[in-house]
Amino acid sequence: MITADSLAAAHAALRDRRPLVHNIISAVSANFAANVLLALGAAPAMAESPDEVGSFAAVADTLAVNLGMITPPRAEAMRLAAVSADKAGKPWVLDPVGAGGIADRARFARELCLLRPWAIRGNASEIMGLVGEAGGGRGVDAGSGSGDALLAARRLAAETGAVVAVTGAVDYVTDGGDAVALENGHPLMTRITAMGCAATAVVAACLALDADRPRAVAHALSIVAVAGEMAAAAARGPGSMQVEFLDALPRIDCGRLRARQGGAAAGG
Amino acid sequence: MITADSLAAAHAALRDRRPLVHNIISAVSANFAANVLLALGAAPAMAESPDEVGSFAAVADTLAVNLGMITPPRAEAMRLAAVSADKAGKPWVLDPVGAGGIADRARFARELCLLRPWAIRGNASEIMGLVGEAGGGRGVDAGSGSGDALLAARRLAAETGAVVAVTGAVDYVTDGGDAVALENGHPLMTRITAMGCAATAVVAACLALDADRPRAVAHALSIVAVAGEMAAAAARGPGSMQVEFLDALPRIDCGRLRARQGGAAAGG
Amino acid sequence: MITADSLAAAHAALRDRRPLVHNIISAVSANFAANVLLALGAAPAMAESPDEVGSFAAVADTLAVNLGMITPPRAEAMRLAAVSADKAGKPWVLDPVGAGGIADRARFARELCLLRPWAIRGNASEIMGLVGEAGGGRGVDAGSGSGDALLAARRLAAETGAVVAVTGAVDYVTDGGDAVALENGHPLMTRITAMGCAATAVVAACLALDADRPRAVAHALSIVAVAGEMAAAAARGPGSMQVEFLDALPRIDCGRLRARQGGAAAGG
Repeated sequence: MITADSLAAAHAALRDRRPLVHNIISAVSANFAANVLLALGAAPAMAESPDEVGSFAAVADTLAVNLGMITPPRAEAMRLAAVSADKAGKPWVLDPVGAGGIADRARFARELCLLRPWAIRGNASEIMGLVGEAGGGRGVDAGSGSGDALLAARRLAAETGAVVAVTGAVDYVTDGGDAVALENGHPLMTRITAMGCAATAVVAACLALDADRPRAVAHALSIVAVAGEMAAAAARGPGSMQVEFLDALPRIDCGRLRARQGGAAAGG
Repeated sequence: MITADSLAAAHAALRDRRPLVHNIISAVSANFAANVLLALGAAPAMAESPDEVGSFAAVADTLAVNLGMITPPRAEAMRLAAVSADKAGKPWVLDPVGAGGIADRARFARELCLLRPWAIRGNASEIMGLVGEAGGGRGVDAGSGSGDALLAARRLAAETGAVVAVTGAVDYVTDGGDAVALENGHPLMTRITAMGCAATAVVAACLALDADRPRAVAHALSIVAVAGEMAAAAARGPGSMQVEFLDALPRIDCGRLRARQGGAAAGG
Repeated sequence: MITADSLAAAHAALRDRRPLVHNIISAVSANFAANVLLALGAAPAMAESPDEVGSFAAVADTLAVNLGMITPPRAEAMRLAAVSADKAGKPWVLDPVGAGGIADRARFARELCLLRPWAIRGNASEIMGLVGEAGGGRGVDAGSGSGDALLAARRLAAETGAVVAVTGAVDYVTDGGDAVALENGHPLMTRITAMGCAATAVVAACLALDADRPRAVAHALSIVAVAGEMAAAAARGPGSMQVEFLDALPRIDCGRLRARQGGAAAGG
């Protein structure tokens, strides 16, 4: 289980060790994800050319692959980057954007799962789509609640060896066995585009700094969720929410953490 | 004619019915347009691969096609998406970015006009460029005032069957006959990139919810313009303008609406 | 040397003469760079298709080429746009993003240097990478301090004929001979993505309005740095920093300028 103290240590490590996070990410999310990483003290890089991405595994500390706005050349870059990260023994994280509502995305996401991601982060319908369940997503939407996807998340974790995170009103993190439920966050976070994509980037950053993978993923999601609820308390709408969120990231109040063992309730 | 009451109903419908808006849009505008839609309660999706866009017409409620930063693969995606939307009987909107100053853009925009857009939204020089008039635009700039383009807008509407909107200090909406003039807005809106692109996305969203097309377009532009003048009253510059605009969108004051029959004055 | 008065004149010229700046720039930076130009009163255009960019030299006043997130089609567009600008006698500026840490970027940046850029702006490791020195950059990071790159900057200026700017805690501008050191700015500027890319866009804008190239570059960097330190004084974190920066740009306090002849100290 993570605690306020372990969260504070993970947060400080981002600032002090400044991991270089290579993101292959959509045009809609690139700027926000980069700013989230910078706000935490991490360093973003966004190269996406098939020519370049293979060499990034040598220099970057970690990789986040995001299927949003995918095109054939970017899909090729994702394959190459994931293979390179895997060969270099560096963490890589899959964000299967749209795998809940778009059949080809689910197919490609499953192909990438064979390249041994350390973690997979998606909303309920994306995680359900990855194991062939209908999660009710439309386009890139969540459809179902995160708890509904917990069994799918466990199955996906068991099949792929990845830590799987389902984010929503409650976030769940599982390595196939028990799950942790993370209860921070605020509904206003869903009114800003790229919040999930940014969370994936932070997951990649934390995996570079902590050998305990489920814990690293839980810390990352909690950093985002705690900043989100601090921001919502100060925001007057979705515009100031974005500003307050970036302002909160460097100085989150770790005492706000609400984490619990989530297996029983969520699977029941 | 639209009224404060009809505007309030259109605004509430976006939040309550949450239309899924498929945007094919430039990297410069994607994030802002997505955040504008989310602020209003609508759901954005930004797929742009020729492989994927055809299937989006089955799931999205409406489509916005924006020529900014066009490339050959994205042009192909625009064609496929427009054809799919047309076949599925779903609304689609054309934003002919740069058609006022770039000959190839005007040519491609005219090609897309043959695919029966429900609405076309542009600045004066873009609308004039679409009917072969010189509107004095440089690059993606407006050049002329919106009133100068009203005759071009009527002609374009008559030729294409689309509702045509010319935006500027005053926005005009016409289906080829009479025009409505919308007088809300603020000059500070022109100091934020992607404001016009975001307006087009809102036009697409409103067309999904109201069978009266000219009314839907007028509501969409008024939502953006009223939020813009509310934001300008609170902003200290173009940075806070962007924040205040997103904050204002969910809670616009519909009583601020200033709409009038615009045919006589503007065409005179 | 630049002065508070010359800075004020350069700043007013941007607003009054509204140069049209064509940017070929990454998805992570496009929106922020466009908003920075608009905040100053300049006009951005972001076309990036090889089909279109050649014709932009006829209409745009100046060009900024930014290697971030480069792909083969965008590299081709950069070549075509630079050739067109050079033929048309219009300014163009190179931003060699990543040339410090990625060998292929340095190679391509050197190729573009043969197309006679009027200015080159990079961080220390990028400028050092362009002359074949190891500057310790990882990915797109700076690695070294800007002063360490001053000799490299002079050599690059002498070899290419471009004014070379190395930005960092202190910014240096040199035409191969003496250098100017610009001491405005704030560390919080490094916590916002695309700040350097936006500075390059402003360099391009200022070069369109002033025949004295080193002075134009120094004015551009000072506009950005003065706005940055004004913003940092008002910001509560990296989110509000971005807002305050855009708000400060139209009303910078030119009396804050801290410029000095930088050759002796920096080269010593």
